[in-house]
Amino acid sequence: MSTSALPFDDFRALVETMPGPDMEAVAAVRQRETQLTKPAGSLGRLEDLVEWLAAWQGQPKPRVSRPLVAVFAGNHGVAKRGVSAFPIEVTEQMVSNFAAGGAAINQLCIAYDLGLKVFELALEIPTADISVEDAFEEADCAATMAFGMEALSGGSDLVCLGEMGIGNTTVAAAIFHALFGGSARDWVGPGTGVEGDALELKVKVVEEAVERCGGPEKLEPFEVLRRLGGREIAAMTGLILAARMQQVPVVIDGFVTSAAAAILYKMDERALDHCIFAHVSAEPAHQKAIDAMNGKPLLDLGMRLGEGTGAAVAAGIIKAAAATHSGMATFEDAGVLNKD
Amino acid sequence: MSTSALPFDDFRALVETMPGPDMEAVAAVRQRETQLTKPAGSLGRLEDLVEWLAAWQGQPKPRVSRPLVAVFAGNHGVAKRGVSAFPIEVTEQMVSNFAAGGAAINQLCIAYDLGLKVFELALEIPTADISVEDAFEEADCAATMAFGMEALSGGSDLVCLGEMGIGNTTVAAAIFHALFGGSARDWVGPGTGVEGDALELKVKVVEEAVERCGGPEKLEPFEVLRRLGGREIAAMTGLILAARMQQVPVVIDGFVTSAAAAILYKMDERALDHCIFAHVSAEPAHQKAIDAMNGKPLLDLGMRLGEGTGAAVAAGIIKAAAATHSGMATFEDAGVLNKD
Repeated sequence: MSTSALPFDDFRALVETMPGPDMEAVAAVRQRETQLTKPAGSLGRLEDLVEWLAAWQGQPKPRVSRPLVAVFAGNHGVAKRGVSAFPIEVTEQMVSNFAAGGAAINQLCIAYDLGLKVFELALEIPTADISVEDAFEEADCAATMAFGMEALSGGSDLVCLGEMGIGNTTVAAAIFHALFGGSARDWVGPGTGVEGDALELKVKVVEEAVERCGGPEKLEPFEVLRRLGGREIAAMTGLILAARMQQVPVVIDGFVTSAAAAILYKMDERALDHCIFAHVSAEPAHQKAIDAMNGKPLLDLGMRLGEGTGAAVAAGIIKAAAATHSGMATFEDAGVLNKD
Repeated sequence: MSTSALPFDDFRALVETMPGPDMEAVAAVRQRETQLTKPAGSLGRLEDLVEWLAAWQGQPKPRVSRPLVAVFAGNHGVAKRGVSAFPIEVTEQMVSNFAAGGAAINQLCIAYDLGLKVFELALEIPTADISVEDAFEEADCAATMAFGMEALSGGSDLVCLGEMGIGNTTVAAAIFHALFGGSARDWVGPGTGVEGDALELKVKVVEEAVERCGGPEKLEPFEVLRRLGGREIAAMTGLILAARMQQVPVVIDGFVTSAAAAILYKMDERALDHCIFAHVSAEPAHQKAIDAMNGKPLLDLGMRLGEGTGAAVAAGIIKAAAATHSGMATFEDAGVLNKD
């Protein structure tokens, strides 16, 4: 499908027509689950993951044979306010590092046999400084969402979202503050490692950005994305929506990826039912953001790198869960007595 | 080393001579960690795992290239009291299922490329019913510990412990109650799925067993193992000790495996420093047991199967952590600017 000309209204229409879970597939999984050689329910969340895969792949025999980590990179005008511990050049340098295989996400993709695609989003044209003006125009924002939607093509059966963008925890904090209220300080944390005066400045920048837009809980979600967002975030929002339409379950990574998800959640609380939160990040506000979306993260490993690293670790577990369900013997096959 | 003739005193002497961590290896890991292309500390517990591997492998470049899951199976006289939801024949049937590749642990070992060895421990000779007599004699218990020690041979660089034994959550509860006090009810849970009257019976059986030995916190740890333990538990206690001597880090699985570890912890609080608790089980008392050993489980996935399944999932993360540390580029290699 060609989506590159969609304005926001067409994305809103897509959100309204999102398909629900395939409950027949879930029933088939539950039926097989009772026959496998283990006490019922004893694999805990691994079993939940298999049901979730079935529901959203629409497959009574869910599988993870073509998992993809999609990493989106964007630059942010707000970085020049000094809100990151790293200079803005690092976004592009890290994209080169991804291409050369030198980053953490490369090693995790090798370890868990996950595909990796990295999408650079006009790094030479940062979005505007959100503390003083809107990040981008509707046409640009919508085109970036459409780009994200098209990034999914290729037959993936599980997609992990990741991002890279110096300054983007500031942008994510502004999105959460605008969508979910509270104070700017509630949503701001160290990101790559700012502290002291730089952290105070980051709080002030987020306050200014959201105040400029009329304060928290005032804007419609796509307007939050356009006025306070960034390219990698818009692309991930688009991809999450496309994945729902194409029956591909999604693994959300950390703080910034969750901001992309939050745009859709705020439009419809069912919009993330095909997604799982991979982990709770060490970024202090991530748990609060997950709670605001009624999520239940799979892991809590103190990670805060982004790049899709938390999602990749979760994907390793999801793959194993699917393999367990499909590969185990039944009580009958194995000649094992079932429960008394 | 031949260990088959050791009485308890020789094991006690081994505990007293356990080597400590290799802090030079840890220092080397920390030094490299600061150079890798990511904000310092941003991989959270993955970085802790690499330091832990280095400390206990005694390697400045830790690796997980020959991970092993060692599953020990034993039978328990106490099972005839009706404390499990499954009949005692299931222990042997599941061992056959492991051999045929049909169990959950087989699929997880394939998913994470882990070696798997299953050790049957005289399944035709269950230990005695601990509610009325001692599980086994010192010579038998010590020989089983020695068997567990020798199971480690083969160049493994990480070992995951697992177990199978109908009735063994009752035995584990008795061990925890005897070692750490409280009431029998504090340590008893559903195991494979007992509830109602059967669960009340299980509490009563554990009470009887520990009362028979003079009550909680009275016996020396190896005496707890001999009087209230079981073969698979004794073998795992031996293996944990051998791993310390041979510089192989250990991944503890769930409730029963933790009981094997607790024997050593109660002898010396440093005895498990080379071990990690893979996960907190859904068996309700597992968190309490981990707390009693000052542990910090890696995962909380509601698993309660045993067989080493939780340890295998953790091993997937430990392998990935090691790969990340060894395979990532440094800031200098990648031409990425470090923190401002």
